[in-house]
Amino acid sequence: MLAARPYPAPLAGLFGDPEVAGALSVEAQIAAMLRVEAALAAAQAELGVVPPAAAEAVAALNPKMVDLDALDRATARDGVAVPGLVAQWRAALSGDHAPYLHWGATSQDIVDTAAMLCLRAAVDIMAARLSDLMDALAALADAHRGTVMAARTRGQPAVPTTFGLKAAGWLMPLIRHAERLPPVRDGLPVSLGGAGGTNAAIGTHAGEVERRMAARLGLCVAPMPWHAQRDGLVALGAWMAAVSGSLGKLGTDVLLLAQAEVGELALAGAGGSSTMPNKANPTVAEALVVLARRVGRLMGDLQDAPLHAHERDGVAWQGEWLIVPDLAQAAGASLLRAQTLLERLEVRSARMRASVEASNGLLAAEAAAFRLAAVMPRPEAQALVKRACAEVTESGVHLADVLAQLAPEAGDLGDLHDPAALVGDSDAMVERVLAARADLAER
Amino acid sequence: MLAARPYPAPLAGLFGDPEVAGALSVEAQIAAMLRVEAALAAAQAELGVVPPAAAEAVAALNPKMVDLDALDRATARDGVAVPGLVAQWRAALSGDHAPYLHWGATSQDIVDTAAMLCLRAAVDIMAARLSDLMDALAALADAHRGTVMAARTRGQPAVPTTFGLKAAGWLMPLIRHAERLPPVRDGLPVSLGGAGGTNAAIGTHAGEVERRMAARLGLCVAPMPWHAQRDGLVALGAWMAAVSGSLGKLGTDVLLLAQAEVGELALAGAGGSSTMPNKANPTVAEALVVLARRVGRLMGDLQDAPLHAHERDGVAWQGEWLIVPDLAQAAGASLLRAQTLLERLEVRSARMRASVEASNGLLAAEAAAFRLAAVMPRPEAQALVKRACAEVTESGVHLADVLAQLAPEAGDLGDLHDPAALVGDSDAMVERVLAARADLAER
Amino acid sequence: MLAARPYPAPLAGLFGDPEVAGALSVEAQIAAMLRVEAALAAAQAELGVVPPAAAEAVAALNPKMVDLDALDRATARDGVAVPGLVAQWRAALSGDHAPYLHWGATSQDIVDTAAMLCLRAAVDIMAARLSDLMDALAALADAHRGTVMAARTRGQPAVPTTFGLKAAGWLMPLIRHAERLPPVRDGLPVSLGGAGGTNAAIGTHAGEVERRMAARLGLCVAPMPWHAQRDGLVALGAWMAAVSGSLGKLGTDVLLLAQAEVGELALAGAGGSSTMPNKANPTVAEALVVLARRVGRLMGDLQDAPLHAHERDGVAWQGEWLIVPDLAQAAGASLLRAQTLLERLEVRSARMRASVEASNGLLAAEAAAFRLAAVMPRPEAQALVKRACAEVTESGVHLADVLAQLAPEAGDLGDLHDPAALVGDSDAMVERVLAARADLAER
Amino acid sequence: MLAARPYPAPLAGLFGDPEVAGALSVEAQIAAMLRVEAALAAAQAELGVVPPAAAEAVAALNPKMVDLDALDRATARDGVAVPGLVAQWRAALSGDHAPYLHWGATSQDIVDTAAMLCLRAAVDIMAARLSDLMDALAALADAHRGTVMAARTRGQPAVPTTFGLKAAGWLMPLIRHAERLPPVRDGLPVSLGGAGGTNAAIGTHAGEVERRMAARLGLCVAPMPWHAQRDGLVALGAWMAAVSGSLGKLGTDVLLLAQAEVGELALAGAGGSSTMPNKANPTVAEALVVLARRVGRLMGDLQDAPLHAHERDGVAWQGEWLIVPDLAQAAGASLLRAQTLLERLEVRSARMRASVEASNGLLAAEAAAFRLAAVMPRPEAQALVKRACAEVTESGVHLADVLAQLAPEAGDLGDLHDPAALVGDSDAMVERVLAARADLAER
Repeated sequence: MLAARPYPAPLAGLFGDPEVAGALSVEAQIAAMLRVEAALAAAQAELGVVPPAAAEAVAALNPKMVDLDALDRATARDGVAVPGLVAQWRAALSGDHAPYLHWGATSQDIVDTAAMLCLRAAVDIMAARLSDLMDALAALADAHRGTVMAARTRGQPAVPTTFGLKAAGWLMPLIRHAERLPPVRDGLPVSLGGAGGTNAAIGTHAGEVERRMAARLGLCVAPMPWHAQRDGLVALGAWMAAVSGSLGKLGTDVLLLAQAEVGELALAGAGGSSTMPNKANPTVAEALVVLARRVGRLMGDLQDAPLHAHERDGVAWQGEWLIVPDLAQAAGASLLRAQTLLERLEVRSARMRASVEASNGLLAAEAAAFRLAAVMPRPEAQALVKRACAEVTESGVHLADVLAQLAPEAGDLGDLHDPAALVGDSDAMVERVLAARADLAER
Repeated sequence: MLAARPYPAPLAGLFGDPEVAGALSVEAQIAAMLRVEAALAAAQAELGVVPPAAAEAVAALNPKMVDLDALDRATARDGVAVPGLVAQWRAALSGDHAPYLHWGATSQDIVDTAAMLCLRAAVDIMAARLSDLMDALAALADAHRGTVMAARTRGQPAVPTTFGLKAAGWLMPLIRHAERLPPVRDGLPVSLGGAGGTNAAIGTHAGEVERRMAARLGLCVAPMPWHAQRDGLVALGAWMAAVSGSLGKLGTDVLLLAQAEVGELALAGAGGSSTMPNKANPTVAEALVVLARRVGRLMGDLQDAPLHAHERDGVAWQGEWLIVPDLAQAAGASLLRAQTLLERLEVRSARMRASVEASNGLLAAEAAAFRLAAVMPRPEAQALVKRACAEVTESGVHLADVLAQLAPEAGDLGDLHDPAALVGDSDAMVERVLAARADLAER
Repeated sequence: MLAARPYPAPLAGLFGDPEVAGALSVEAQIAAMLRVEAALAAAQAELGVVPPAAAEAVAALNPKMVDLDALDRATARDGVAVPGLVAQWRAALSGDHAPYLHWGATSQDIVDTAAMLCLRAAVDIMAARLSDLMDALAALADAHRGTVMAARTRGQPAVPTTFGLKAAGWLMPLIRHAERLPPVRDGLPVSLGGAGGTNAAIGTHAGEVERRMAARLGLCVAPMPWHAQRDGLVALGAWMAAVSGSLGKLGTDVLLLAQAEVGELALAGAGGSSTMPNKANPTVAEALVVLARRVGRLMGDLQDAPLHAHERDGVAWQGEWLIVPDLAQAAGASLLRAQTLLERLEVRSARMRASVEASNGLLAAEAAAFRLAAVMPRPEAQALVKRACAEVTESGVHLADVLAQLAPEAGDLGDLHDPAALVGDSDAMVERVLAARADLAER
Repeated sequence: MLAARPYPAPLAGLFGDPEVAGALSVEAQIAAMLRVEAALAAAQAELGVVPPAAAEAVAALNPKMVDLDALDRATARDGVAVPGLVAQWRAALSGDHAPYLHWGATSQDIVDTAAMLCLRAAVDIMAARLSDLMDALAALADAHRGTVMAARTRGQPAVPTTFGLKAAGWLMPLIRHAERLPPVRDGLPVSLGGAGGTNAAIGTHAGEVERRMAARLGLCVAPMPWHAQRDGLVALGAWMAAVSGSLGKLGTDVLLLAQAEVGELALAGAGGSSTMPNKANPTVAEALVVLARRVGRLMGDLQDAPLHAHERDGVAWQGEWLIVPDLAQAAGASLLRAQTLLERLEVRSARMRASVEASNGLLAAEAAAFRLAAVMPRPEAQALVKRACAEVTESGVHLADVLAQLAPEAGDLGDLHDPAALVGDSDAMVERVLAARADLAER
């Protein structure tokens, strides 16, 4: 049973996601399990398998009546909560109706179908946040198409780019994640296989019962029971992990750009130190990285799920219970923290530009090499620019001026002074990413 | 660079996949990188960026001329093989053409595009094997629709099922994997971003160069460079991991059913012991589990890939080189071993049936409880059957006979002696899975 | 801050450990942090760094007065609870004393030292349980030195062994874990480095303050601050993981031996099914495997801890908070579940012996080969026995009798009928393991 | 069988370790396995179990005679190389001696004992490198005790420290690792349990045979066979992982300090770019992080090893073969790359000092707060310094001067201008770490 553990204060604000934890709470899971039993009974009543009055009685049960302590003891014994739950619910039904609760189903049918319902709710929460995030990033990318900054590769400044393109780079994977969601989200299947996956107890109506349950719950029907086939769950986890991973990249970049020595981004309301009045720690960005790494590890752990022995494997199944709720909550928290981060993000455009200019044209080295290659062999051009770069570093003279002396044949290199002229195709790229976002939003 | 390490004998036959390792060999990667450079040059020649003769000269280079030792030293220094490769290739070109090799590209463009080509080849190898496997499993499922055996849940015999349904259960996830492949496989993008992801050096033609390269290489075009966006690679790894995981379940089941005490499956040509003449070890099934667990862990490790700092992150990028080739080779080996396993699989139908019958009707307990529930309250029926089960275990008398005494009001329970009557909907389920396979094959 | 999340009912009884979760609860951590602040103040008071009255006032603070909601908000901002805690505690002190709380320390000093105190408490809980478990396993090994059963290798019956030796094999790693604990447990260090690990604010007394704090708290002193050196924490985690892993092997073996087809072990009070009256699921054994796998994965995740950037790394540090409490609680739960398992373990000696005998001497094949090798070349002996084994399987005649016909020159092989004569050195091995346990207990 | 896969050029120089890969090569493993068989035969010959001439013949076998292709086929069938190896070796012995090869042993005895020998060789290679590294780091720490730089916490400059203390912080964990090695390294046990771990085939001499084998091979003796007890192997892996992890921290710090915007460290001979003449990438530092992360993940994977079913578990055992050689090679490569990094490390002391000074006293904020707290309540002091820090940031005036105006009552704060006066206890800390290194070296 995929019940989430909430984070206690004072860790809740760092790592927790109350909404997703709520969607996966014990209470939500129990309510969903009852909803599944009710859908089963209703479908069976329609087909004459159980009496309609029994189905109505099941539907009228209150999921909150469960004695959780008693349930805990039963679950520790049975390895799954359903036998204990069914016992409590039957005790609450009249003797006429009690037998028809859970008719022909097995515990896993109830737990897994309820998990689909609760995970879908969690995913819907995430998808809504993702949509907001995409809008915020699109606005950021659009606003900063002209904000020149250094692209950095392997930790070193490389060439000029724009902050708009960087923001578009945060956005683009999210667009793909949003595009990848529907087949995963809309394909979540009802589980109905009965004791051993043959639906023997339900009898000839089994297929029709399953279809009607699925219709009632808004789920799909698989060609055969998936008790021991966990690929759908892994795909769902992979989607969450992909979202969290991409947000981890956002956090990584912000942490690096918020270093005091770089100072191109800052977070309003940054964290204080217990002893250093000078500190302003970008803690929200840290959280994005911490959560993404956690989700990534949990996603790896979830890869054991498909190795599900026989027709039901207690070890593999319970392993999911320890992994998926943590994964979902951390992925949800990634989205929450990313929203906070974007709200607090301060883009220091002047510092970005100053950083590019402080390189004295080193970031124009690639461009210079191509310019020189027009008037001399390219290896020679590259070697000359490499030599010029060393001189720039030593002397502090701008690369354009050093090259004017070293290679007068290259003509006027003055535009190497203008980093905005060296950002290549970045504006068109931003345009394409924004169009992809708009296109997605219109669907 | 995603170069695979082959397994040396005597581990090659256990864990290796020569074909996939070949698709990802150093030689294949270098050839692919040259193919990418040639496509770049050809596209640029068409657009007047580089001289057509230079493009032809690049296309005529022989990838096998590379001095690997020198390249190793250069790569250890540069952290990527491309600068060293380009230097060697330029040395092999005439001075007129040399500068136009690698014009405007960055190392990552070449490495990543070549990786897409080689991984696509690896995936195609896997997809062909997957198709064969699906056929073999479909035949197995079809042949054994009527082969009664025990379904086992949580390690214990539960109810009767058929071996055909079990085989269908091995097949069904593979069908879904095959259905999930096309969007992943056909969406592999060319990488062209230049030094910092702005395509500054290629200039205004960048977009068109990229489209033409993509057309030549059979790849797609992304809205912006994906140097620092690794979600596509993760999705590709996830597909391989999903396949391997499902085959790990096949291995798990075979190992359990091949235990001497169960003996319902066997593998022809099973492994010998160095000291015990009596042993026949199901080593191929072991390999499936070992490989699936390995792939699962590697898939978890790959979750770090999206946390790719700035515009290019040497740490994250090189991490992929340590993970993906091992993941791909192990996934490929999973498929090879699964083929071998199915070729050698001996289905011991008689033992399966004997095992069901040796339970003296315990596997009919659920059915019995439903039968009794027609004539008494269900809780009473369940309690009565539970008591009867204890008596069966103690006395060895068949459940139907015990119940005939305990609950004569239930009427004739003689059909509980016939497990074939208790396999529920299994035949229809097999039918649906086979139809899904046929449907997939027809597309 | 290493605060544990308890498992909610109905998962608490499966996966939870209330005692360890209590030792690592928010309340326990906060109390420990206050204890650390008090030890710091007391040490500083002794050395004249802060006024004695202030130290007494700190010692008199009540850790339970903390407003957790306010602390949660502060922690989300600061990325660590200490600034918020110190603010609340200072507000509770008089103006004269408030400044001397947390004098010269940094948040990490307080969090990490408190973590050492709480983890030591958790480890002590585990060590006591481990000692009980060793006693129970020693008794089991001793009681079953003569209980013959099949040793199984690669999933197949191999040769006769004793259940006593199997139990000794569960015990032996625990003895080594107990032997490995003292250097880890007794080497836990106080953390005192101040803002940047130089103890600049405490001044010349820093070394002496640290020693006195350590003495008050029963911790050690490291040569330099370990803010960014996490090997000790990893070693502590590794100890917990080792214990849990060895108990996972116990669970694995019990699950396999409790399969109905094997039936050599059973668990009293095994779990029921919601629909199958015949089921008795060994859920406690499952939990041992589930928990060990979980702990193993978390231990792998903890390997990121040493990659701790600069003088303090928010990402790496917070990563520990997400990993260690889960690891400790799951390891503790492993021990609890193992105790339960041993209490409920039913050893079915007759079934064990019957299983050996039902092999019709196949388990004596190795012994037979050695017997025959006395009268013929060994390869010939091995081949002959292999042929005989095939005949045994087909005919059901005992190996000794088959061989008597095939190799009359081998003389009387009648003792191959007695598996108890074929258990080799197992009794002496059990003796040595029990002696190792006794030796450890006497220390 | 723990055979390493070497990295092919051009990845060898980045990720490979030829020496460790050599110690774990197929050839080394086969030679070690033959050495184990020879030690077994010699011990048995001394005790009259096998003829002395046979033992001599075994000792005279040439491990290089093995037909690896045939061995590969046999291994794929048997799941372990020993049956195939023994067959080849027996074929090379005279008929008189052949039977006495591998007398009473099982495959796992040979594979695991050989693994201990080869892993010990690998660990010894690592330990020697570790010792050299400690010397290099000790020299670095000693040379830079007076080199002032910024301590950085949570990515932000915090207070002044020295580069000597930073180097001591890289050294200290290595000292602890070296101290932790002997019990792990010297406790590696011989494996001798025979077919099912009872040593039934060797008979009454088993214990003595094992002791004599151990003496010949320089290994220890365990109280009972450890076929299914893998804690010792995990401990060995943990040691390697700990070393690699600590070196990953070194790499992390170097990467961060070598960022162009920080520029306090550089690596001579840094990596070039294929297109940017201005780039100098710290690729060796990257490799340290990549390798440490890889080793960390593999260490997590190794946590499955103790869950070793029954008396021998093919899945768990083979899993080790896929993990340990990669782990060992990557850990060895960590040490190699760390040596290279230290050889190439350029310490830019002037830039370090300039960076501290460029903060205009912000790094003295904690010190200032303590100074002010002498003349006003501490909260007031902290608030005042916080305000002053904001003014420093805005105006560029030094904190000491801002405070002189804001808080004239604090007297002369001029020494806040001298960061060397603010490095606290760092020199004594370095001294203690160097003493710990010297102490270790003298043992």
